[in-house]
Amino acid sequence: MRGDIDGIEAAVFDVFGTLTDWRTSVTAELAAAGERAELTADWPSVADDWRRAYPVYLRRVVDGELPYRPLDALHRLMLDEVLAERGLEALSGAERDGLVRAWHRLRPWPDVPPGLERLRASTVLTATLSNGGVGLLTRLTKRAGLRLDAILSAELAGSYKPDARVYRKAAELLQVPPHRLLMVACHPDDLTAAARSGLRTAYLPRAREWGPDAAAPPPPEGVDLVVDDLPSLADALTR
Amino acid sequence: MRGDIDGIEAAVFDVFGTLTDWRTSVTAELAAAGERAELTADWPSVADDWRRAYPVYLRRVVDGELPYRPLDALHRLMLDEVLAERGLEALSGAERDGLVRAWHRLRPWPDVPPGLERLRASTVLTATLSNGGVGLLTRLTKRAGLRLDAILSAELAGSYKPDARVYRKAAELLQVPPHRLLMVACHPDDLTAAARSGLRTAYLPRAREWGPDAAAPPPPEGVDLVVDDLPSLADALTR
Repeated sequence: MRGDIDGIEAAVFDVFGTLTDWRTSVTAELAAAGERAELTADWPSVADDWRRAYPVYLRRVVDGELPYRPLDALHRLMLDEVLAERGLEALSGAERDGLVRAWHRLRPWPDVPPGLERLRASTVLTATLSNGGVGLLTRLTKRAGLRLDAILSAELAGSYKPDARVYRKAAELLQVPPHRLLMVACHPDDLTAAARSGLRTAYLPRAREWGPDAAAPPPPEGVDLVVDDLPSLADALTR
Repeated sequence: MRGDIDGIEAAVFDVFGTLTDWRTSVTAELAAAGERAELTADWPSVADDWRRAYPVYLRRVVDGELPYRPLDALHRLMLDEVLAERGLEALSGAERDGLVRAWHRLRPWPDVPPGLERLRASTVLTATLSNGGVGLLTRLTKRAGLRLDAILSAELAGSYKPDARVYRKAAELLQVPPHRLLMVACHPDDLTAAARSGLRTAYLPRAREWGPDAAAPPPPEGVDLVVDDLPSLADALTR
């Protein structure tokens, strides 16, 4: 751990990857749907493809190529594309709708519940700041037993990260000056964009985000803090 | 308790009066500020005046007479007006700012924490739906130890209750059809407006909202449920 984070009043957390192990959760639901449809595939790799399509579609919305629409609708478009590329069109519309909702049911990394509980007992405000919608995030955090002080989403800015409006909207809604708001994420591009909007940043590498053999990317230049897990972040913010 | 509330997926709660005893909290802070300024006044009645100015100002915003601005800013305007009427202008600007933040520190009614904990363990989603802003509500619920699944505010619709847009925005953000969303409040006008937007409604009378000798108003016509306290509501929703 390193960095200077004096004066932080609130911390906002990326969710897909940083708080939750999307890959294990989504792969299991894809495999179960595939089995029901008697389809075989390399399901972890289908999950990876689905997740990789995500920043590409969001970027189209941020750049104005696609009108804003809720993440569930984008997830369905991406899934349809990935299934077509893989020759898995036999998966029914109802199964596809169920798979879109798999993102409402992601499981947290093991260090997350105890880290959030420690922050909950401190004066630091905590909130999600995800591209998932408010409804998705409310269901996900309730089901996973994650205790945050508020649910914030890119939806509230009518855009997606890494659009600067998303980070500024979070600071405005929490009534916290941007330099007293900490963005916590495992994705360097999320942190770089947050820093550009005046937020401070904490990098929490998740080496296993893309599977057991994956490696975490290096921290972004100028990051304010690097931590190994959420309890370490809680220690740093409440020391 | 009476009424039919089958199929409710989420409950949203009014905060000033329904979940919190604003009068005791605000009166104590007014009296303390007055003592520091060596002012005497009937502080409970000053608190009542301040609270009575509130629906009047919000109505001006809903009707387009005043542009939307955050509740803290409106609270300051109302406080200045009430203090002038009472001859209490000697209260400094810093004290007034502190009193505006008294609304961030309201204490809950005693039945509220156990009722919310019971709902938290159920599948029913819970959220605030208050005219207080997201920042105010996040601080208030954290400080009071109130556990809700999400923080929703009229601020997210850029208006105030009883504007229909506020109730519809809550249903949209939670991804719940309006008829599966329950508005819980101690104010009949809030419930009447929610019902007009297609929500279902639960009346939770708070006889002591306006002081020890006050009486609760009768329930609004057509209300779906009347409960005595929050644990009773939790029982009704999770039976």
